[in-house]
Amino acid sequence: MNRILEDVIRKNADTIERITGENTMGYVVADNTTNSVAETSFDNTGAQAIVKHLHGVLVSSCQSVVRDLDPTNKLCFLRVATRKFEYLVAPEEDFTITVLQ
Amino acid sequence: MNRILEDVIRKNADTIERITGENTMGYVVADNTTNSVAETSFDNTGAQAIVKHLHGVLVSSCQSVVRDLDPTNKLCFLRVATRKFEYLVAPEEDFTITVLQ
Repeated sequence: MNRILEDVIRKNADTIERITGENTMGYVVADNTTNSVAETSFDNTGAQAIVKHLHGVLVSSCQSVVRDLDPTNKLCFLRVATRKFEYLVAPEEDFTITVLQ
Repeated sequence: MNRILEDVIRKNADTIERITGENTMGYVVADNTTNSVAETSFDNTGAQAIVKHLHGVLVSSCQSVVRDLDPTNKLCFLRVATRKFEYLVAPEEDFTITVLQ
């Protein structure tokens, strides 16, 4: 796992604890540079599917739609409410965090 | 504009009034069957860009990602928070509503 991401996860351990403590179903932290799972509370298959489809397909599609509509604008956060649960996606520079609640 | 949509807009006039009264920047109601703007508070160019990019590209991409992750699940609502404002997108069967706040 890349060094920056390790530091961030260590520094935010209590935040991750708090987020996953409350009534969330789980989380995935993905390393954007290698498009791989860095940290997760799910099984690896489930986490990899989220990284592949949600981060890989949806976040990039969303970033380009936001820029198509206004080149000076930028995607900050994405909430996808589905019939079963909600995906909360925070795309950062080096990593992307998704929490399910 | 299709009959169903006209009825829905007429029946929900006070809701639309309330939504657009509060601190929202505007809204677009799009007819899904013709992919055209049915009702909007924006100028036509801006509204058409939202229908084309947000409804046409992002909503469909999001619907398929949700199904790829879980075929029994379904997209209900989408919130795209950007640096400048937030898009609230409600994809229904016959029409899609987007509010900017």
